[in-house]
Amino acid sequence: MIIVGERINSTRTSIQEALQAGDEEALVREARDQWAAGADYLDVNTATMLDTEVEWMTRLVTGIQARLPEALLAIDSPNAAALEAGLRAHRGRAMLNSITGERERIEAVLPLVREFQPRVIALTMDDEGLQREADKRFAIGARLIELLAREGVPPDNVFVDPLIFPVSAEGDAGRIALDIMDKLKAAYPGVHTICGLSNVSHGLPVRRQINQVYMLMAMSRGLDAAIVDPLDQRMMVNVLTARMLLGQDPGCKAYLTAYRQGRLNLDAPPP
Amino acid sequence: MIIVGERINSTRTSIQEALQAGDEEALVREARDQWAAGADYLDVNTATMLDTEVEWMTRLVTGIQARLPEALLAIDSPNAAALEAGLRAHRGRAMLNSITGERERIEAVLPLVREFQPRVIALTMDDEGLQREADKRFAIGARLIELLAREGVPPDNVFVDPLIFPVSAEGDAGRIALDIMDKLKAAYPGVHTICGLSNVSHGLPVRRQINQVYMLMAMSRGLDAAIVDPLDQRMMVNVLTARMLLGQDPGCKAYLTAYRQGRLNLDAPPP
Repeated sequence: MIIVGERINSTRTSIQEALQAGDEEALVREARDQWAAGADYLDVNTATMLDTEVEWMTRLVTGIQARLPEALLAIDSPNAAALEAGLRAHRGRAMLNSITGERERIEAVLPLVREFQPRVIALTMDDEGLQREADKRFAIGARLIELLAREGVPPDNVFVDPLIFPVSAEGDAGRIALDIMDKLKAAYPGVHTICGLSNVSHGLPVRRQINQVYMLMAMSRGLDAAIVDPLDQRMMVNVLTARMLLGQDPGCKAYLTAYRQGRLNLDAPPP
Repeated sequence: MIIVGERINSTRTSIQEALQAGDEEALVREARDQWAAGADYLDVNTATMLDTEVEWMTRLVTGIQARLPEALLAIDSPNAAALEAGLRAHRGRAMLNSITGERERIEAVLPLVREFQPRVIALTMDDEGLQREADKRFAIGARLIELLAREGVPPDNVFVDPLIFPVSAEGDAGRIALDIMDKLKAAYPGVHTICGLSNVSHGLPVRRQINQVYMLMAMSRGLDAAIVDPLDQRMMVNVLTARMLLGQDPGCKAYLTAYRQGRLNLDAPPP
């Protein structure tokens, strides 16, 4: 299970404020906290900075990796110039967030894929926008997997996001996304699936509860990666527990270590 | 999702004490609490009373249904005479806990199945005892489903338990049980699966956390029913949330009702 920490995103108020104030330290602190909580990648999104986005992307990628030499980042932007700046500044194999089935996006992103060979998040939307129908999302995912394969990207570097709709709007949305992931994994062995799973709870109360439950349900069906808040302790304890239950924690070692370190405390208040 | 409340089991110290003291009120209170928490069936096991087991079974079934006229019970005993007494005293369609692939057990239980047409829990063990191999457990489940079908028991009244082994002893145990359930449901449409899921966490700390996570993972793979403690509030909130995420809660009505009633409070201490 690959955890992509979602917190350094300029659409969040606290991140936007830190960027406006030029407070690089606050941003590095967010990176450090997420890394310590067990994230495997840290998403970096500076999109709302507009004119200074490219500079901020370079500055953050460099600044975070200077302080956390082992940390890997997911370079996240709608803007190809910012993606390029982030990938160029990054040491090690970055994640590119994201390619889509949109013609312009493909044209902008493919040269970066060729040059930097990152891991790539592929969103199952295209020029017609978000697709409600499961078959259409599967088809877009399939097309992107094949396109990336032609660029020499191995399955292990491809992360397809089935784009979950909110269950508040569409009762079957959660189940449908699970089915799309099943089909993609069956058709393209070795390809990963990823979810920005908080969308599933949009419009409902106690969203953290819904996200936590959906995460486990998706892991049980083979979800490989998720973009989540690693400071949600219960989410991380759940993931640790689920890995053990899926046979991915030999000798229950990680689970027992977490227990001895007091990290399985169920009654910690949410962060 | 059918929740079978597990608390009225004579192997639990408090239940054993209530039985020894003849404290029927304490036992009825356990029934009332579980029913109020949302159980669909209440398991009743008086096996440790030995000589007075049959009388106690009759007394409890009658006593609980007198106070909770809508409650349905799972009659649970290794002793066919106690099963018969419970089924005879029960109003409505009881659950029989359980039949197994053991020859003696089949001979003792089938006449009761014929007479009372209960819902039946089928454990995937036989005269060779517990089977580690998934294929053997599948085969026993399949044989019991077919045996029950010949007795006129429709698939909707059959609940097969894949008998989960502890992950502490066998890292793959959780995944294997999920696979057995998948295969049984694919081979016998309409048949239910059920888990006494607490076995999965045997020998590990913070078992409640493990059981809660496994429940969600199993629901995501189609688990229909579980024998659990309905007073575990987080378990019940998780089940409510999972049902919504599986498209089984039209308009998110049950979830939103629970929210308005303050039942989604994540920080309640475990009971």
